[in-house]
Amino acid sequence: MAFLSGLSAFPITPIDLDGRVDTAALKRLVARLCIAGVDSIGLLGSTGTYMYLSREERRRALDATIEEANGVPVVAGVGALRTDEAVRLAQDAKAAGAAAGLLAAVSYAPLTEDEVFEHFSTVARKSGLPIVIYDNPGTTHFRFTAVLVERLAQVPGIVAIKNPTEKAEEIASHLGQQRSATPKGFSIGYSGDWNAAQAMICGADTWYSVLAGILPDVCLRIVRAAQNGDAEEALRIDASLAPIWELFKRFSSLRTVYTMADLLGVCRAEPPRPILPLPPFAKEQVAHCLTLLEQDLA
Amino acid sequence: MAFLSGLSAFPITPIDLDGRVDTAALKRLVARLCIAGVDSIGLLGSTGTYMYLSREERRRALDATIEEANGVPVVAGVGALRTDEAVRLAQDAKAAGAAAGLLAAVSYAPLTEDEVFEHFSTVARKSGLPIVIYDNPGTTHFRFTAVLVERLAQVPGIVAIKNPTEKAEEIASHLGQQRSATPKGFSIGYSGDWNAAQAMICGADTWYSVLAGILPDVCLRIVRAAQNGDAEEALRIDASLAPIWELFKRFSSLRTVYTMADLLGVCRAEPPRPILPLPPFAKEQVAHCLTLLEQDLA
Repeated sequence: MAFLSGLSAFPITPIDLDGRVDTAALKRLVARLCIAGVDSIGLLGSTGTYMYLSREERRRALDATIEEANGVPVVAGVGALRTDEAVRLAQDAKAAGAAAGLLAAVSYAPLTEDEVFEHFSTVARKSGLPIVIYDNPGTTHFRFTAVLVERLAQVPGIVAIKNPTEKAEEIASHLGQQRSATPKGFSIGYSGDWNAAQAMICGADTWYSVLAGILPDVCLRIVRAAQNGDAEEALRIDASLAPIWELFKRFSSLRTVYTMADLLGVCRAEPPRPILPLPPFAKEQVAHCLTLLEQDLA
Repeated sequence: MAFLSGLSAFPITPIDLDGRVDTAALKRLVARLCIAGVDSIGLLGSTGTYMYLSREERRRALDATIEEANGVPVVAGVGALRTDEAVRLAQDAKAAGAAAGLLAAVSYAPLTEDEVFEHFSTVARKSGLPIVIYDNPGTTHFRFTAVLVERLAQVPGIVAIKNPTEKAEEIASHLGQQRSATPKGFSIGYSGDWNAAQAMICGADTWYSVLAGILPDVCLRIVRAAQNGDAEEALRIDASLAPIWELFKRFSSLRTVYTMADLLGVCRAEPPRPILPLPPFAKEQVAHCLTLLEQDLA
């Protein structure tokens, strides 16, 4: 499960106003990640606005990415409101050559634990795609209990979990409890970029990173320092990103990285409506942060 | 806006395991509502699992309902994650002959107030369908502020609001504040069946009712008593429904009314997966409640 360790970088999925994926722009984003040397590409995550894309457009994004990634493993979002749809998306991802599928407990009607268990088991069983539990209460409003994670980790084909942000001081105990409740080899990772350095220092397998989707180099330096046992260096680089974490918290990481992609000249895509691009005053703050970061890392 | 007053009854949308609408079963449900004399039919609400149905299936459900309703106004759910999709669904509903569209702030990425304002304004403007603001934080996790409702109520074509459950003792002040912040003729209604009698007694225009989708007669008796100023009678009938409100709170109204439709011999549909039918012990409790209610109302 080496592909479910290290840095998993989540790019945006550039689309036009009709929701059609701009595969040329997507390939530019993916190429940056491959050149940087990320450990996997997290395509069609929440940052990749998977829930706003049709099955056909998700397939087009997958094909373009896997072609451009040239062997770098692609972990693809396969979540959907309906179980049969999630199964089809996971089958598509497997057929396209994805290494694993990220499955969130997407819901409209709030779901029970048993319903989520059945949903995940069915997708894993019917698709044959290795499944990463995507615990994202900020978007799904479903909360995985420790008991449910333990049950799911025993299901054949469910191989990893992407945990939401934990408070920095609680990561070590959260990670320890989850390790002891899941099988050997089950990959445990975290999102929430601002506490990910701490998670990697504590021994998490993977950082599922939004920022790495647009600024992979600096994120890789944190991950490699943590993997080499140099906590001090990991925290030093992480501290230089503090202004960016503030932007993420204030304007959302999703809206912020769209602006960054524009400012860096990678692509000028806008998020799918109703999500709006950041207003000019916020864009200025993002530009200022990028300039500071450049100086800091120079 | 007479169709946005009184009792709006929300039936389930019976589907098969592939998500295809069983129009014969839907027509049976709609016929019961028309015979009872409800004031409007709330098709494709949350209880009608609109978010789990394709555009084509929503169209089929609309056509079957409007044909069967034979002049009873149909208020149809037109919510979607993407603005362009919600516009198309509202255009479909208008073309099919719906009287109004119910629009919820469906989200995956959490939305800002400005984004929701743009989303609603765009759907109203581009569809020409009268829009009911569907405030349902239990499913969308978006909370409409009083300020946002006031802004939206000034948009041409936004004609009504379906409020979520308020505590019984807070309905009068909530309703008073919303009346004073919205134009004359703007229809104010409530869902949350267990406090709806109180809302109607306080002078709300509409009860958007899940229970009325399967048991319209008893709900109509409450509404007519409230409309006639007989609060005592409205509360007396409402009290007889207390065991049902407990089922709704414990098992969710959605799952409970599927079981009721089966027990009453109307249809044997199951909710779209991952939502599961109630387990046998719960089904027994629903059956027991229906028996009690029959005796009580006999």
